Amino acid sequence: MRGPAADGDRLWRSLMDMALVGATPDGGCRREALTAEDRAGRDVFVRWAEEAGCDVTIDVAGNIFARWAGDGEGAAPALAAGSHLDTQPNGGRFDGVFGVLAALEAVRTLRDHGVRTRAPLDVVVWANEEGARFPWSCSGSACFTGALALDEARELRDAAGLRYGDELVRNGIAGDAPLGGRPLAAYLEAHIEQGPVLERHHTTIGVVTGIQGYRWWELVIEGVDAHAGPTPMEGRRDALLGAAAVVQLANRLALSVPNARATVGELDVHPNAHSVVPGRVRLVLDLRHPDLEALDHLQATVRAECERVLSEAGLGFGWRSLYGRPPIPFDGRCCAALEAAARSRGYTCERLYSGAGHDAGFLAAATPTAMLFIPCENGISHNPAESATPEHVSAGAQVLLDTLLELDHAS
Amino acid sequence: MRGPAADGDRLWRSLMDMALVGATPDGGCRREALTAEDRAGRDVFVRWAEEAGCDVTIDVAGNIFARWAGDGEGAAPALAAGSHLDTQPNGGRFDGVFGVLAALEAVRTLRDHGVRTRAPLDVVVWANEEGARFPWSCSGSACFTGALALDEARELRDAAGLRYGDELVRNGIAGDAPLGGRPLAAYLEAHIEQGPVLERHHTTIGVVTGIQGYRWWELVIEGVDAHAGPTPMEGRRDALLGAAAVVQLANRLALSVPNARATVGELDVHPNAHSVVPGRVRLVLDLRHPDLEALDHLQATVRAECERVLSEAGLGFGWRSLYGRPPIPFDGRCCAALEAAARSRGYTCERLYSGAGHDAGFLAAATPTAMLFIPCENGISHNPAESATPEHVSAGAQVLLDTLLELDHAS
Repeated sequence: MRGPAADGDRLWRSLMDMALVGATPDGGCRREALTAEDRAGRDVFVRWAEEAGCDVTIDVAGNIFARWAGDGEGAAPALAAGSHLDTQPNGGRFDGVFGVLAALEAVRTLRDHGVRTRAPLDVVVWANEEGARFPWSCSGSACFTGALALDEARELRDAAGLRYGDELVRNGIAGDAPLGGRPLAAYLEAHIEQGPVLERHHTTIGVVTGIQGYRWWELVIEGVDAHAGPTPMEGRRDALLGAAAVVQLANRLALSVPNARATVGELDVHPNAHSVVPGRVRLVLDLRHPDLEALDHLQATVRAECERVLSEAGLGFGWRSLYGRPPIPFDGRCCAALEAAARSRGYTCERLYSGAGHDAGFLAAATPTAMLFIPCENGISHNPAESATPEHVSAGAQVLLDTLLELDHAS
Repeated sequence: MRGPAADGDRLWRSLMDMALVGATPDGGCRREALTAEDRAGRDVFVRWAEEAGCDVTIDVAGNIFARWAGDGEGAAPALAAGSHLDTQPNGGRFDGVFGVLAALEAVRTLRDHGVRTRAPLDVVVWANEEGARFPWSCSGSACFTGALALDEARELRDAAGLRYGDELVRNGIAGDAPLGGRPLAAYLEAHIEQGPVLERHHTTIGVVTGIQGYRWWELVIEGVDAHAGPTPMEGRRDALLGAAAVVQLANRLALSVPNARATVGELDVHPNAHSVVPGRVRLVLDLRHPDLEALDHLQATVRAECERVLSEAGLGFGWRSLYGRPPIPFDGRCCAALEAAARSRGYTCERLYSGAGHDAGFLAAATPTAMLFIPCENGISHNPAESATPEHVSAGAQVLLDTLLELDHAS
């Protein structure tokens, strides 16, 4: 169902205004979860939502629900849309923010045009999506859906040893509404792709049919420290040389499996002194695939090959599972509605998987859920250079609005 | 020429007594250069040297010369032997100390047996050999030989911002004798190997024919940060994958060149987050060879191969020279005398290069110089686990004494 035209210029201005909060000199944003900057961004959103006529509720986990009342009777389940406002330490202007402000733009447009939905609309800001400061990404939506106990989240610590529960309170992130108890008819999340596929294909709207499963494995490789000068090359047990083989192996194996990803993004060398052959390397291996069986197989192959190579080099090793999530399929009806809305507006459209985790992944367990992606420049995200065009931003917001109206109409 | 028998038990007891100064709970020693602990160790040495009948002179750079007078007329050039008493922050009981106390044991033995050399013997303690606190290793011997101006050394700062020149005075390291002006007939330095070669070969005495040259190059590899999930393997520009190739290349090339060493001991990943394809890696490449031409060739080959591989991967790179020293050959006559002394005592003996820098490297520019190595357990040094056997310590002292007598006899 085609609704009124979203105001792309207004949405773009709001994106740029939000980017001033925690702006970094390189054009990026730093609003790490549960910090004063995060709070400042959330305050701006709350003001805008109230100006748009929403009633704002914040739950004890810090999730914000800005409700645009429907014209239905009683407490009908709401149609929800949103994302997050927290960023990576070195983040950009679109990741998360676009999904929140596109949903707000839907409400603003409906208000401008005097359109009332039957169901209420909830514009949602989930707390701590990034998981960069506190090591539990999407902890806000996970608490909301019951996948994570709030008491458990409260015990998380950041690198400085600060406690999640204390920071929730100290920086005014937590509200007083209880967790959950807000039945949702559906949840939609708009987001930049964070990958290069739509841009490469010149596609405007990506309909996201699910989220890749992933596994994070910590691998510690044990060699023997030795002085770089007197120690002959023969017989060294260089942990970094073993790690180099692991990095190459993981990349090569993932290249041979369609839709697979393998990445070593984190690697620490000990003692990390230039004249000492490294005795120990710790690295994290990130493995992803949209199919559970293929993910299991990828993991088994990568681990077995790494163990073979490290053993041959006389190096010790230990694996530790840090985290993982199975692949998550999204709701077929929501995906179909997004695709129909995109095509009805004449936007190019394709279906794809999300390679990154999103709050929608937790919502999907409880509520009919789907996501839409718009292209981002060079596939870059989690970076000050993160960029999207005003045209794509506007198109994404329009498809989100049209789909919400269609789901409201069909309910 | 075989001299009287050195007292290995006395030498071992002196090593263990000196190890009490700045002893650490893990069995190591911490006497960082120009600290109160360094001073305390030097005071013990001065007392022992005076008890052995030496006249002690300390120069303005903090080098200690304990002279055992010869029976020759006038001020003949002295035969010198020694090393250093300062340690790494996390040092052991033998590095440096063995060379100083083996030289002192030579004097003690001569005194016990009423043997007078023709030339005076100088037992030398060089200031700040380690360069761990103040970033100029062997600064004492470099000042003595004129390779470093004392005024320049005085301006060095430690990590706390303390000035070398101030610490020399505050902790009573500097004496009042002028720099230099002490002609030396030869300089010998006994030391633990700090490498595994002698132990592997079951060799008691290593005759060190020179010191490897080395070059430290910083390499920054520039790729593009990307999210590990949504970014397909194809088309990534992963700086860590490039660094892995560099680590492997450097190792492989050094393995193919006799006596070459190539080590990547220091490597930092940016942003070093497990779900981000690394956009930048900084590493330090340590290249060593005892022959200047071979070192130049190794460096050219490693750099060219790395640049080829990085360019093919679409990665940017920049090199920066951090530091380097050319190879230093030792004196052939001194080496021959050491070898003859070892063989005369029936010790197994082999010639090898030093992979680490030593005060002898600076002395070699001004004076006929050589070193002898004894094995150390597992090649470990700069570590509390640093260890040598009483038998090897005693053998090293004996060879040092015999060689000093031979050089004195032949002069």
